[in-house]
Amino acid sequence: MTTVAFQGERGANSEDAVVKFFGEVDLLPSRTLADVFEAVNGGQADFGLIPIENSLAGSINESYDLLLANQLAIVGEVNLRVNHCLQALPGQSLAEIKQVYSHPQALAQCEVFLRNLGAEIIAVYDTAGSAKMLAEKGTRGAAAIASRRAAQIYGLEVLAEGIQTNPQNFTRFYAIGKEPAPRSEPSKTTMVFGTLNIPGALYQALGVFARRGINMVRLESRPSKARPWDYVFYADLDGHVDDPEFKAVLEDLGNKSTFFRVLGSYPAARE
Amino acid sequence: MTTVAFQGERGANSEDAVVKFFGEVDLLPSRTLADVFEAVNGGQADFGLIPIENSLAGSINESYDLLLANQLAIVGEVNLRVNHCLQALPGQSLAEIKQVYSHPQALAQCEVFLRNLGAEIIAVYDTAGSAKMLAEKGTRGAAAIASRRAAQIYGLEVLAEGIQTNPQNFTRFYAIGKEPAPRSEPSKTTMVFGTLNIPGALYQALGVFARRGINMVRLESRPSKARPWDYVFYADLDGHVDDPEFKAVLEDLGNKSTFFRVLGSYPAARE
Repeated sequence: MTTVAFQGERGANSEDAVVKFFGEVDLLPSRTLADVFEAVNGGQADFGLIPIENSLAGSINESYDLLLANQLAIVGEVNLRVNHCLQALPGQSLAEIKQVYSHPQALAQCEVFLRNLGAEIIAVYDTAGSAKMLAEKGTRGAAAIASRRAAQIYGLEVLAEGIQTNPQNFTRFYAIGKEPAPRSEPSKTTMVFGTLNIPGALYQALGVFARRGINMVRLESRPSKARPWDYVFYADLDGHVDDPEFKAVLEDLGNKSTFFRVLGSYPAARE
Repeated sequence: MTTVAFQGERGANSEDAVVKFFGEVDLLPSRTLADVFEAVNGGQADFGLIPIENSLAGSINESYDLLLANQLAIVGEVNLRVNHCLQALPGQSLAEIKQVYSHPQALAQCEVFLRNLGAEIIAVYDTAGSAKMLAEKGTRGAAAIASRRAAQIYGLEVLAEGIQTNPQNFTRFYAIGKEPAPRSEPSKTTMVFGTLNIPGALYQALGVFARRGINMVRLESRPSKARPWDYVFYADLDGHVDDPEFKAVLEDLGNKSTFFRVLGSYPAARE
């Protein structure tokens, strides 16, 4: 069966995204995002699934840097609604919960719910890890904030679901693999490029896409790390790199950038 | 005397930046970046100093979001070379150091030095806080990674200086205040804007600057938080908003964006 690596413990949000994108597969939980890339590079996994941005918190910088540092292809994308669940050992009521454990970002996203609950807030390294910890230690009077899947895996009971303050909380993931994705419509393409050290350099580079009618749906900058205040840009574009208008783009971009690389063309997420 | 708020304990990197930019002032250490904005809004501080980007790690997202959420002006910028110092209670040699405490990012930036040292690595919430902790507890056999200023403040001895793996490690800060900065040359201007929901929207918005010969030195995107996959853009531009070419820009940008705001025109950093 296909094996897919993701970052985090069993029950992490990334695991939900793996199941949504790949369906039934063998799961390879990995400690770090770099480990996910290593698992695919080394053949322990056929694919990896990495978070690339959250609709509230923004980009996952490490994922962008790892895409550039490795030679893997983006083969798909998937959007997942973040659905934080307060969960505890079975048979307890909300009123009995005196401590809540989770990752600092999850705790921050559930701030209004937690303020009303009035329990002590304790930050730990991982959402699913907080569920696992309660289950393994058999801690009563405490709850974790993690996914419904984490509750199922670790035998916890969901006391409250969808407790995030802002319901418009989505995370977008890339599936990565060694080979390009088979073509399907509609497609998206992600490219990375460096800009020339001249005035208007980024505007000129973006003109390469705009003049060919290629729609850019996202642009992210990261430090180049080659020298201070020098950047590389990641562009998400509508269309497939094999489309006729992309041929001219690749030629033009060679003249308008210090380097560029197509990170992948892949089926656009349907939702 | 002028009072300047910054995030962190006494001896934080931000304090070095305050001294470099403002010289001798009253210091107001603040727990969070939001507290820095509050101190300026509430008049407890005349100015605040906030980190905006690091040349290796990239943007400080929270600073960008707070600039948009508040109505303060950027009145200056300052670049500071990050100079990590291993420091411990006086009279100890490097060989006696068995534990090293610091913020995870500082520990990561000194990875090569720490690998050679072979001590146990312990992550804490703050660089200057780790120095303060060793001094207060009188812990021997342990060292902190923090600034030289932190060593002076807490009475620690610097055992090794400049231990970061990549010497090209700079942080850029913005000074913020209630009133716009007095004009001086060369100036920079920072603007924030939202793009229209049409193909090529960002390219068209950037064209407003490029067509008037205004050089954009940096572009950063952040989630708008109004709806998923919708972004606001922060642009750093050469020049002052009172320059004649900016007049036309402000008119044009009204038609090419959903909103825009000038966050400030300020003297460009000299280095």
